[in-house]
Amino acid sequence: MTTIRDVAKRAGVSVATVSRALNGKGYVHEDTRKLIDKTIKELSYKPNEVARSLYKKKSRLIGLLLPDIRNPFFPELARGVEDEMQEHDFRLIIGNADENPKKEISYIETFKQNNVTGVISATNQTEMKHFEDLSFPVVFLDRTSNHYPSVYADGLAGGKMAAREMIRRGSKRICLLRGPVELKTAQDRFKGAIDELCNFNINFNVMTTASFTFADAEKAAAELFEKFPETDGVIASNDLGAAAILHEALKRGISVPEELQIIGYDDIPLSRLLFPPLSTIRQPAYDMGREAAKLLIQLLDGEISEHKNIQLPVRFIERQTTRKVENNG
Amino acid sequence: MTTIRDVAKRAGVSVATVSRALNGKGYVHEDTRKLIDKTIKELSYKPNEVARSLYKKKSRLIGLLLPDIRNPFFPELARGVEDEMQEHDFRLIIGNADENPKKEISYIETFKQNNVTGVISATNQTEMKHFEDLSFPVVFLDRTSNHYPSVYADGLAGGKMAAREMIRRGSKRICLLRGPVELKTAQDRFKGAIDELCNFNINFNVMTTASFTFADAEKAAAELFEKFPETDGVIASNDLGAAAILHEALKRGISVPEELQIIGYDDIPLSRLLFPPLSTIRQPAYDMGREAAKLLIQLLDGEISEHKNIQLPVRFIERQTTRKVENNG
Repeated sequence: MTTIRDVAKRAGVSVATVSRALNGKGYVHEDTRKLIDKTIKELSYKPNEVARSLYKKKSRLIGLLLPDIRNPFFPELARGVEDEMQEHDFRLIIGNADENPKKEISYIETFKQNNVTGVISATNQTEMKHFEDLSFPVVFLDRTSNHYPSVYADGLAGGKMAAREMIRRGSKRICLLRGPVELKTAQDRFKGAIDELCNFNINFNVMTTASFTFADAEKAAAELFEKFPETDGVIASNDLGAAAILHEALKRGISVPEELQIIGYDDIPLSRLLFPPLSTIRQPAYDMGREAAKLLIQLLDGEISEHKNIQLPVRFIERQTTRKVENNG
Repeated sequence: MTTIRDVAKRAGVSVATVSRALNGKGYVHEDTRKLIDKTIKELSYKPNEVARSLYKKKSRLIGLLLPDIRNPFFPELARGVEDEMQEHDFRLIIGNADENPKKEISYIETFKQNNVTGVISATNQTEMKHFEDLSFPVVFLDRTSNHYPSVYADGLAGGKMAAREMIRRGSKRICLLRGPVELKTAQDRFKGAIDELCNFNINFNVMTTASFTFADAEKAAAELFEKFPETDGVIASNDLGAAAILHEALKRGISVPEELQIIGYDDIPLSRLLFPPLSTIRQPAYDMGREAAKLLIQLLDGEISEHKNIQLPVRFIERQTTRKVENNG
């Protein structure tokens, strides 16, 4: 009977490599995988299905690295990843890097030591060295990378869209909440909005928030009305920031959307529950998670090459923190 | 030179047990641990510190099982666990059981296979068999258990407190949102509120929600005002439910707190950002996470026995969905 050793010997690779190729565990170069498939057919090798399925079950572990589990956007991403992985019989463990590069490195070590099959990372250090030379594939989620496959939403278009909807609805003294400068996703939407405001010659001010946390959102909201009391439209960097602005405006007796329009970013579940409900730019978080999981599974199956980038569209969700568009507008 | 084998032989235990005792990895009975300590002293055994620290580093992995990562209460718990574990040089991986017993079992398997040092579980199957015969200790968080150490907040007192504050502030036709019947924590607060309402002979109605998700909260809120339009006070089962009630009330032109008072439960970060900001019963989620982590570390260090239960107090956070207490009230 042909054994896995015969296949390895004939293909000129190690038994471990054949095993990885058979089990979809760990990374095997596409050419090697093809060679192994060919050899298996030539030798009519039948892997031991029981052993294989036991082995597969044991090792079908995926690591998901999130930047901040307390930001409601990321649990949505995680659920998308999870549901897709579940359907393909993978298990998902989550590490919360907490926007801290040291924690991030530590989690990658943890994933390595626990022989994960692959990693999906939504953290910010996409160019860091510790993603190099890993024995498993990495997919970036909600991030772009020049070196790895990724799934993200079109931030530049989202920012433009927010500005355009704000202008169409008549705001003239707009304030932009600028998210953390080190986050590329935050800066994409910021740049998109600025481009559009410049195209239309609209005046604007900028308030930068140090992070996407609740505390910083509240602080920025209070400051915004002190510094720029003439503001009649706020384009927030995310929905938490928009919620804080809405809260602060209502507290100050400013009517929304009559005197002040607000547009958020993300469309987290809470945004619908605010009153008035928040108009926002929707990122398809759950779908992004699903797509990233699919991409990783395709990589593990050797179906695609390493540099696929998937950009998902965003859209404007019209609720009640923006005015209706005038018919003649 | 004395080796670990000599210690094991003399103490009458396996090398693995001595190793676990030395490294604080895996569970060792307190008596066994004492015996091993004694034997080490008798034989003047010096463990190889380099090997030991490498080994410790590799295995200092804690599994945290959450019931629903999308409910903002749980990421707060997770952050508490994480910060305490971080300070003690443990790493934390998170599994989201998604209120699904099958997923829960699957995560416990995953944790086993990855040789975690210990597990903290905030899921609902506290009495299930698959927590038995594990080689590592388990601490329950936000749950009580008759068989395992646990950290939780006083739900009965919280429910009473919510009802008392509602009554003191003059609501007479109260509606209780009852959380999922299978969740003991939800039922504790529910029972506490009922007790207090009965003590004061206050009329009340009950709306049961199938889950703690956003969708079910919105559904319950819409139904409540159809079924019980005379309601002048809502005691919600959590803050998401309270946010949905607030939203629905404002949509219907009901003034809060003048015509309708609302009290939530949890005090998630978003509750402050609602308008009017939500009065609620605060569970110290972050501190609960910290305490559970401390308890697990103490168990691993053999400092405490297995059945310690820590109950943390809750408190009323007065914001603006409840009226001021009248001086003569």
